Amino acid sequence: MYKSLIVLGLLFAITAYAEPRATGDLGLVIERESHSALIINTTQHRQLAKIEDLGDLSHASVVFSRDQRYAYVFGRDGGLSKIDLLEDELSARIVQAGNSIGGAISQDGKFIAVSNYTPGGVKIFSADTLEAIADIPASYGNNQLSKVVGLVDAPGQRFVFSLFDAGEIWQVDLHNPQQPQITKFTNIGKQPYDALITPDGRYYIAGLFGEGGMALLDLWHPEAGVKRILPDYIKPDEKLPVYKMPHLEGWTVAGDYVFAPAIGKHEVLVIDKRSWQLVKAIPVPGQPVFVMARPDGHQIWVNFAFPDNSLVQLINADSLQLSSVLHPGKAVLHMEFTPRGEQVWVAVRDDNQLVVYDTDSLKEITRLPADKPNGIFFSARAHKIGL
Amino acid sequence: MYKSLIVLGLLFAITAYAEPRATGDLGLVIERESHSALIINTTQHRQLAKIEDLGDLSHASVVFSRDQRYAYVFGRDGGLSKIDLLEDELSARIVQAGNSIGGAISQDGKFIAVSNYTPGGVKIFSADTLEAIADIPASYGNNQLSKVVGLVDAPGQRFVFSLFDAGEIWQVDLHNPQQPQITKFTNIGKQPYDALITPDGRYYIAGLFGEGGMALLDLWHPEAGVKRILPDYIKPDEKLPVYKMPHLEGWTVAGDYVFAPAIGKHEVLVIDKRSWQLVKAIPVPGQPVFVMARPDGHQIWVNFAFPDNSLVQLINADSLQLSSVLHPGKAVLHMEFTPRGEQVWVAVRDDNQLVVYDTDSLKEITRLPADKPNGIFFSARAHKIGL
Repeated sequence: MYKSLIVLGLLFAITAYAEPRATGDLGLVIERESHSALIINTTQHRQLAKIEDLGDLSHASVVFSRDQRYAYVFGRDGGLSKIDLLEDELSARIVQAGNSIGGAISQDGKFIAVSNYTPGGVKIFSADTLEAIADIPASYGNNQLSKVVGLVDAPGQRFVFSLFDAGEIWQVDLHNPQQPQITKFTNIGKQPYDALITPDGRYYIAGLFGEGGMALLDLWHPEAGVKRILPDYIKPDEKLPVYKMPHLEGWTVAGDYVFAPAIGKHEVLVIDKRSWQLVKAIPVPGQPVFVMARPDGHQIWVNFAFPDNSLVQLINADSLQLSSVLHPGKAVLHMEFTPRGEQVWVAVRDDNQLVVYDTDSLKEITRLPADKPNGIFFSARAHKIGL
Repeated sequence: MYKSLIVLGLLFAITAYAEPRATGDLGLVIERESHSALIINTTQHRQLAKIEDLGDLSHASVVFSRDQRYAYVFGRDGGLSKIDLLEDELSARIVQAGNSIGGAISQDGKFIAVSNYTPGGVKIFSADTLEAIADIPASYGNNQLSKVVGLVDAPGQRFVFSLFDAGEIWQVDLHNPQQPQITKFTNIGKQPYDALITPDGRYYIAGLFGEGGMALLDLWHPEAGVKRILPDYIKPDEKLPVYKMPHLEGWTVAGDYVFAPAIGKHEVLVIDKRSWQLVKAIPVPGQPVFVMARPDGHQIWVNFAFPDNSLVQLINADSLQLSSVLHPGKAVLHMEFTPRGEQVWVAVRDDNQLVVYDTDSLKEITRLPADKPNGIFFSARAHKIGL
């Protein structure tokens, strides 16, 4: 009888493994207030697991290992958590700083970099073990440390980031991880507050909060230095109160244009990617936060800061005109497109829901419960530069 | 004793499943002459399994399911094989035509389309069961059937393909799979021999073997019809004998340019993606076959037809000048970049090898054996439009 029970138990164990899980259609949904994350499947529109004890997730972001098995969650409290998407478990977690603001994974997938406010700098860890590999204090002036923002991975096994207090952009080459090679670009402008890298990994652009405009670095020509672009895009006298600082990671490249939220204005800016000149400022019904292109670049989806955060505005990227408006619910905080763009998932925090839309018909496909969701990240990001 | 053996057997079964496999870093290598394919892991540079009995693979291509669990192999003999990358097995196979030339997977991952020479047309199957869903004979003129080439998936749950004998481009909308909606573009030029779609899924371009030049369809503006571009790009009196028909799938988009092999010439053409005008014809040491951009678009890698098929020529996409030349071995037939571009795998048929390079240092990282490899396809293709 005892042996039979063991056999039965083993049979159950085998059954549990009977349907192996592929990782191409998985995602992680951040649940801010419960310090947890949901593993979801985007084909079946289904929650697979809930992972808890992830710390302060108020500005959380996520990157994926190159095999798409692991998700790395960067928490606001300096926490770095490694989640196993196949075993539904937290496989490692460290608290590596007092206050941090995001991270990136190296081109080869071997290193995780985290950008910290306190102590200001970048720390680099083994993606496998989370063991510390390198510590890069963001020192400037009289031995001060700067907050670090806008950390991205770049081709050539590089990381690039901005020093908010120092007004600098640094590039780190990690070919020799024990001795990272640092190139510093100084006097790039006042208070870079976030940055993005174009999908091909060529252009790094930092937004300058202290003076308006942006700093542009062509990573194919670092010797040419940092150039200032769009100097007039914020005219301070026209500014509305900024309810939510736009993320440059909420910028998007579609076709020949960059689409970006204007800070403190009810406008989406359209910038020519060859000349870096403003093509058009499109009036929208609120202060844009995330401006995201459907993967085919035909539609631009925009969400807004309070009090307009129940809306999603679509823009036709061809005509540069407004198209449909959607009303997913209260406090739309984030959106993520399926890799080939047929659907989009929308995080509606105050309704505790994820809403899935068909991007052609704009019909709602389904809703899933989630506890105050504030971020959605799909595993296809593993294959993309700068995400 | 007997029960103990069962328990032991079950324990082994569990052990076999103990390390679950993620699917983000997998690939399939086609072994033409042995009718087989290798499942490989690009992180570990390792062969995981060999799948046999795949039929005639002389012009094989591969697409992946959206979860990256399954690879679909299109054989020359009309065979359509579904390979399970987690269980290392052939999970289904049909022979759906007498002679076929490639296929595609629908945007939502539910349908597989195959383009056939005999009988001329496109057949559509369930990606899940390979059950027949729709049959679209490529009929034209006096009830003739045309060979079908250049079949690609497009956003909006569409397939697009060209009719070689009819000189037509057809678009099929599969929103209602039982009743595909067909839009025909006629008189697009003589003998479209292959086609490509830009990575954003907007422009479909067919090469015209019967007259030189290309046919361009803007899928955002199908009402504008098909336009002729680059009418002079083949001047017949200059033609060299064409040893191998270039594949337009060997074209590439990088930054503002399209890079394409010139038919019957020792040149790579650089075409401006806004004006569709020729920017430059770059002389290269052979008749180019595949012209492929590293994912960051900074390097262009080119292989060649016989007798120059032991070379790989690199082009700097910034200066449009030739850079390094590599000598991977005898009969370089195909190349595939890792998704973020740090490495490239090269199929060297007559040396029975796969050669892996670091794309920065251009150093060889490793070689793996393979039986007459003629195609390499990585699972990250699952997330891309038109691949």
